[in-house]
Amino acid sequence: MKRVDRGEDGILAQCGEDRILAKLTRGIRRGAGVRVGVGDDCAVIGGRRDRVWRLLKTDAVVEGIHFLPESPPAWVGWKAMARPISDIASMGGLPEYALVTIAISPRAEMDYLQGIYSGIKRAARRFAVELVGGEMSRSPGPTFLSISLTGVVERARCATRSGGRPGDLLYVTGRLGGSGRGKHLRFIPRVEEGRWLTGNFAIRAMMDLSDGLGSDLPRLARAGGTGFEILRENLPCTKGCSVSDAISDGEDYELLLAVSPKDAPRLETTWKKRFPRLKLTRIGKLTPFSKKQPGLRRGHDHFSQPG
Amino acid sequence: MKRVDRGEDGILAQCGEDRILAKLTRGIRRGAGVRVGVGDDCAVIGGRRDRVWRLLKTDAVVEGIHFLPESPPAWVGWKAMARPISDIASMGGLPEYALVTIAISPRAEMDYLQGIYSGIKRAARRFAVELVGGEMSRSPGPTFLSISLTGVVERARCATRSGGRPGDLLYVTGRLGGSGRGKHLRFIPRVEEGRWLTGNFAIRAMMDLSDGLGSDLPRLARAGGTGFEILRENLPCTKGCSVSDAISDGEDYELLLAVSPKDAPRLETTWKKRFPRLKLTRIGKLTPFSKKQPGLRRGHDHFSQPG
Repeated sequence: MKRVDRGEDGILAQCGEDRILAKLTRGIRRGAGVRVGVGDDCAVIGGRRDRVWRLLKTDAVVEGIHFLPESPPAWVGWKAMARPISDIASMGGLPEYALVTIAISPRAEMDYLQGIYSGIKRAARRFAVELVGGEMSRSPGPTFLSISLTGVVERARCATRSGGRPGDLLYVTGRLGGSGRGKHLRFIPRVEEGRWLTGNFAIRAMMDLSDGLGSDLPRLARAGGTGFEILRENLPCTKGCSVSDAISDGEDYELLLAVSPKDAPRLETTWKKRFPRLKLTRIGKLTPFSKKQPGLRRGHDHFSQPG
Repeated sequence: MKRVDRGEDGILAQCGEDRILAKLTRGIRRGAGVRVGVGDDCAVIGGRRDRVWRLLKTDAVVEGIHFLPESPPAWVGWKAMARPISDIASMGGLPEYALVTIAISPRAEMDYLQGIYSGIKRAARRFAVELVGGEMSRSPGPTFLSISLTGVVERARCATRSGGRPGDLLYVTGRLGGSGRGKHLRFIPRVEEGRWLTGNFAIRAMMDLSDGLGSDLPRLARAGGTGFEILRENLPCTKGCSVSDAISDGEDYELLLAVSPKDAPRLETTWKKRFPRLKLTRIGKLTPFSKKQPGLRRGHDHFSQPG
C-alpha cells in the first residue's frame, strides 16, 4: 500500500469538490449487484438482466448554505425533498420511499419544525413518495436536513451521465440562472419530463443541473469521455440573468441531456406538444475528447468558494 | 382540517423527542408495500407474502452531540456507519448498500476527512456493506455525518419492536452503561448475534439500545401494548458503572429482545456455546399493560435534555 503523507493536502477549501471525492472514494470497488456506483446522480442496484433496477440517492440541505434562517420553513422542507427527487428524475426513474434526517437546535420552535415537515410532506404527496422513517438529533449549530430516497427505473430507460458520444446533441429543460432569487427553494423536479424523455427517445446521457452548467456539463462530458461545444447565445437564461449567470449560478434543477442526432428533430417537435409550458433548448453538442477542451466559467463548487 | 394554533408548542426542548415525532409524522399513511413504517428501528418494504423484505435506515452523528472535535476521526466514521448497521441487526437483517452524507467546514483538514472515511470504509468492509454513493456539502458550523443503509431480512426472521406479549422474557446482549468513556465510538453492531437469534428462536420483539434501557424498554413495551418488569439487580453493568448508569447512559448499541418463555432455556444454554465471549442476560419480562406501569429512570432524550 502506498504511504500517505499526512498533512500534504491542507484544508478542503484548497482541494475542490471533485478532487476530494476522488480521494475519498479511491479503492471502493463496485460489487456484482451494482450497475452504477459512486459518481452519478443516483446509485443503481440490480442484476444485469433485471427488467427493473433500484435507485438510491441521498441529499442534504444545510442552514446558511442551502437556505437561510429566514427562508420560509415549508419551502426549506420542499427543497430538501425535491433535490433527491430531481436526481431520481435525471436517471429516468420514479421515486418511491424516503427517510428524513433532521438535526436542529433544541431552542428551535416546534412550529418551525412543523413548517419544514409540511413542505417535506407536500413534495412527497406531489411526487407519490412515501415517508417511511427518519431520525432526529439535536444540533449545536445550524439546522441540517438530509433526505435519502429510493426509486425504480426500467433497465431500458435508465439514463446515466456516462453514455454520451461525440455528435450527440445537448439540451436543457427550462431556464438557467437566477436561483438566488428564491427559485432554488421552489423548483419542480422534472420527474414527468424525465419519464417521457427516457420512454420515447434514445437519451444517451442525462443529469440534473444542481451545481450549474459550468460545473455539471464538464462532468457529463468527462463521464462519457467526450468534449463539448456550447452555443452561448442559445442558452435559455432566466429573465434578468446574463449568460454568465446561467452558467454559474447553480441550483437550476433542470435536466441536461445528450440525445442521438437521429432523434433530435422528433424530440423538438413532440416536446412542444407534450410540454407546451416548459422550454427545451438545444444548447450545443458533445465532441471528441480533447486535452485542449476550453472550460466554461465554473459553476458552484461546494468547497473551493469562499465561505 | 383542524386549525393549528401557531406558537402553542413553544420550543423543541419543552416537547421531548417522542412527542415531537408523533406530531411530525401525524397523517402519514402506510402504503400497501410497507410492512413497517415510521417508528421502528428500520422501515420494512415488501409484499405480505414475499420471502425476503427490504430494510431502510438512516442515522446521523453530529459534532458536539455524538462526537467531539478531538474524537479520533476514524472512530467517528466507524460510529457513523455502525449505528445504522446496528438498527439493521436489531431487525434480524443483513446490511447491503450505504450512502454517505457529510457536511463539513471548508477549513477542515483533508486528512481529518480522510480519517473519517477510513473508519466508514473499515466498518463497511467488516459488515460487508457496499458504499454506493453520497453527498458532500460545506457546513458553516459543526461536522455532520448521515449514513443511509439498505438491508434485507427473510420475512420469517424479521423482528420488530411490536411483537412482544405478556410473559415473554427480556434479554440484553453485552453490558450496559459507560458509553461516555469512548465505548460509544467503538461498539460492534450485533449483526451476527441478530442473525443467529432470529434464525433459531422465536424472537417476539427486538431493538437496539441507542438511547438507553430507560428510554428504549418503555418504547418496546408500548409498541407491543404491554408493560414490563425489570430485575434491577440482574442488569449487566459495564465495569465501574452503577445500575442507574446502565439504565440511563445510552449508546450501548446492544440488543434488547423479548423471547417466548418456551424458548428461553434452550436460548440460554446454546448462546453460551455460540457466543462464549459475549454475555446474554435475562433482565426481566413483559407484563400485561397497566396504566400504573412504573417508569425506569429516563435514558437519553434528544431534545428534553439541556444542550
